[in-house]
Amino acid sequence: MTGALDVITMGRVGVDLYPLRSGVPLEEVETFGRFLGGSATNVAVAAARHGRSAAVITRTGADPFGRFVRRALAEYGVDDRFVADVPGLPTPVTFCELFPPDDFPLYFYRFPKAPDLEIRADELDRAAIEAAGVMWATVTGLCAEPSRTATLAALGLRPRSALTVLDLDYRPMFWESAEEAGRWADEALEHATVAVGNLAECQVAVGEREPVRAARALLDRGVRLAVVKRGPEGVLAVAADGETVQAPPVPVPVVNGLGAGDAFGGALCHGLLAGWELPRVIGFANAAGALVASRLACAAAMPASDEVTALMNGAKA
Amino acid sequence: MTGALDVITMGRVGVDLYPLRSGVPLEEVETFGRFLGGSATNVAVAAARHGRSAAVITRTGADPFGRFVRRALAEYGVDDRFVADVPGLPTPVTFCELFPPDDFPLYFYRFPKAPDLEIRADELDRAAIEAAGVMWATVTGLCAEPSRTATLAALGLRPRSALTVLDLDYRPMFWESAEEAGRWADEALEHATVAVGNLAECQVAVGEREPVRAARALLDRGVRLAVVKRGPEGVLAVAADGETVQAPPVPVPVVNGLGAGDAFGGALCHGLLAGWELPRVIGFANAAGALVASRLACAAAMPASDEVTALMNGAKA
Repeated sequence: MTGALDVITMGRVGVDLYPLRSGVPLEEVETFGRFLGGSATNVAVAAARHGRSAAVITRTGADPFGRFVRRALAEYGVDDRFVADVPGLPTPVTFCELFPPDDFPLYFYRFPKAPDLEIRADELDRAAIEAAGVMWATVTGLCAEPSRTATLAALGLRPRSALTVLDLDYRPMFWESAEEAGRWADEALEHATVAVGNLAECQVAVGEREPVRAARALLDRGVRLAVVKRGPEGVLAVAADGETVQAPPVPVPVVNGLGAGDAFGGALCHGLLAGWELPRVIGFANAAGALVASRLACAAAMPASDEVTALMNGAKA
Repeated sequence: MTGALDVITMGRVGVDLYPLRSGVPLEEVETFGRFLGGSATNVAVAAARHGRSAAVITRTGADPFGRFVRRALAEYGVDDRFVADVPGLPTPVTFCELFPPDDFPLYFYRFPKAPDLEIRADELDRAAIEAAGVMWATVTGLCAEPSRTATLAALGLRPRSALTVLDLDYRPMFWESAEEAGRWADEALEHATVAVGNLAECQVAVGEREPVRAARALLDRGVRLAVVKRGPEGVLAVAADGETVQAPPVPVPVVNGLGAGDAFGGALCHGLLAGWELPRVIGFANAAGALVASRLACAAAMPASDEVTALMNGAKA
C-alpha cells in the first residue's frame, strides 16, 4: 500500500468468545462462537467496511489466537503492518453474557498483561501516524505502560488540524481508580480534536455526566467535536462552533449491544473523512451502531455503507 | 454425607474450551464446546463414575464459570464441600488443539494466578483427609504457595498405610524450572504410597525416564506402587514386593488424548479401593484411559465400570 492511510486505530485486540444463544447465563452456555474483538480493532474493521483504508496498531500473543487475529484482519481488509507478537503473553480472550436489550457483561482474560499494552513509543511509524486521515486512540490504551507513553506519543504526532479521536472507552477493571483514568484521559484530550464517550465515560474523563455539560466540558478541553452517547436517549454531538445535533436512537431489536459503539466509531471516521455535514455524520454513525446491536457478532457484523443507508431510509420512512 | 469419602483429590479445576472439530488448528476453530476440566477434578469425576464417593479440594473464581464448575460437579456426583471461591481471580480457562493420535497442545489462561493455587493449609478438613480411602494430589499443586504448603500438609496427614497417590503431573509453564518441580515432587513423594506419571514426569520427579529404572527410583523413594505410563508402549506398574505388571495399550481410535490419564487415575483409585489384584487394577485403569481417549470430552466422557469391563472383554476377544 502506498500513500497515507485513511484510518489508523491503536489499542485492544483479542478473541471474543460469545454464546451462540442469547439470554442464557454464562454458566449455562455450552458452546461459544469465536470472533475477532477488541474495541480499537473493531473500529478499524468498521471503517474498512465503509471502504476506508485502515490499520490497527496493536499486539497479540505469539500463539494460535494471535495467528487468528491476523487472518481475521486480512479477511476484513484491515492492514496488519502495525501488528506484532509479544512472546510470553497470551492473546487475550473475552467472554460475554447476552441479556438484551441492555445488559452485556464482559469477562476479560487479559492476564498477566494484555500484549496490546506492550506497544512502545519507539516502535511507532511516526510518518504513517502523522499522515493518516484519522488517528483513533482509546483511554484503555492509557491504563498501563509502555502503552500509555506510546498512545500519548502517537496523539502528540498529529497536526492540530487533523482528525484525532480519543475514544473515552473506560473499563473499571483495567484501572486502579476512576481518578487515575480521568487524569490520563485529561492529558490525552490535549491532543485530540474529537472526543467520543458514553455518559459514564464522560464522568470519568471530565467529571460531567449530564450530556450538554459533558459535551461542553470536552470542548473546553480543546476538542472541536464532542460526541456523547446517551444510551436509550440517542447521541448528542456538539461542535466547537456551537452546532448541535441530537440523534434519537434507531429502533432495532437488540441482540448484542457489544460492538455497537465501535460500529459507531468506524462510521464516524468515515463520515468525518467524507466531509459530510454534522447531522449526516452522526445519523450515519448512529444507524451503523444500531445495525451491529441487532447482530450477534461485533467485528464480523460491521455493516457496509449501503446497509447503513438502507436502515436510515427505512427508519425515516 | 456421613462417613469417610472414598476419594479426595486436590488440585486444578477450570473450564475447558475444546474445538468441536478435530484436526483443525486453533486459529481456524470457529466454535468451542465448554467442559469441566482440570486434572484433579477429572480424577474425582472419574472415580465417582465408578460409584465411589468423591470430593475435590479446589478453588474457583467468584464468577459465572465458577458457578458452572459447581453445577457440573453436582451433575457428575462429585461432592463440592471443599470447593470455595477466590474473589478477584478468574476461573481458569484452557483451550486445546486436537491433532490425534498424539498431539494435543494446551493453552492455559491461569492468570494472574489460578484460584486453585490459593488453597491454604488452614482451610483443610484434616479429619476428612485422614479418613479418606484415597487421597490424590498432584505435582502441579506444588508449583506455587500457599497451595504447595497445603498440598504437603494434606499428604502429611495421611497414615502411612493408606492409599495416598501423588500424580507426577508436570506442566513446564507452571514452573520456573524442571529442577524446582523435581525438588518439590521429591518432598511430596515422602508422603505418597502410590506414584503415577508418564516418562517425562518420571524424569522430572526422579531423574529417570527408562520405565523400569523410573519405577525402581519411585519405589526407592518409599512408595509401595509405582505406575509408569509409557504412552504407545502401555503401562508399567511395579509394587514394592516386586510384582510387576505390563499392560499393553488398548487399541482405540483416538479422538482426544487429554483426560485419558485422569480416567486412568479415577479407575486406579477404584481398583485399589476394591482390593483387586494388581493386573486387574492396571488393566481396568488402562482400559478406562483408552475409552476417554476415544471421546472428545474429558470429565463428561469418564466411563462407568461396565463400559470399561466391556472394552476389556472386547479387547481380549
